[in-house]
Amino acid sequence: MDRIPILRMGPFLLVTIQVDMHDKLALTLQDDLTSRISDVGARGVLIDISSLEIVDSFIGRTLANIASMSRVLDAETVVVGMQPAVAITLVELGMSLPGIRTALNVELGMEYLRQNTIVEGSGDGWDGSED
Amino acid sequence: MDRIPILRMGPFLLVTIQVDMHDKLALTLQDDLTSRISDVGARGVLIDISSLEIVDSFIGRTLANIASMSRVLDAETVVVGMQPAVAITLVELGMSLPGIRTALNVELGMEYLRQNTIVEGSGDGWDGSED
Repeated sequence: MDRIPILRMGPFLLVTIQVDMHDKLALTLQDDLTSRISDVGARGVLIDISSLEIVDSFIGRTLANIASMSRVLDAETVVVGMQPAVAITLVELGMSLPGIRTALNVELGMEYLRQNTIVEGSGDGWDGSED
Repeated sequence: MDRIPILRMGPFLLVTIQVDMHDKLALTLQDDLTSRISDVGARGVLIDISSLEIVDSFIGRTLANIASMSRVLDAETVVVGMQPAVAITLVELGMSLPGIRTALNVELGMEYLRQNTIVEGSGDGWDGSED
């Protein structure tokens, strides 16, 4: 496992984080994701963390970095699927993920992106067309 | 890592396999997926294997089982993102994944599902609505 797959869905990219992120994997993800946003002209990034039972400060910082990098490339980042226990722990640890938008699940995250990003050629965030 | 997350996207479900599947994980995935198909009335399942560099007979059989189970629940399964090297190895090993539909990437797989499944209330496979 040396990289996390990035799936393209119309004008958005979807990343599902399932494994513990160590330094190298996080850096690889940042590199891959920024290249991919640039290559396909993505308008939004969905990061699913539903299978993470622990989100420590390293992962929190990685998510914040990804969101910042995406923003300067004009793509919005939404973190989706956070487990309730993770939310509790994060806030108790004083990490409230400032600057990171979240949504309950990937459907709501996609809905948010569809309504808040301008997608060329279509008002639909997922119409299956190649753009 | 004790389960693989299943993401709902409209009437379809998306599973991204990133880790080596051992017996227990495969069984858990089958259980989770069949329950989920039944719960949400899913019409299709996309299984992304783009990060797998090796697909052995166990994974092949697991994919075939999932496809069969989905079919009896009236959901179609599409395996997407297979690496070229994996395709070569599979055929050389005599495993051509009979009965499993494949697509190059998740976009094309979603497009196939949209065109080949009947989704109630909408002709669109991804309209973000709750149904």
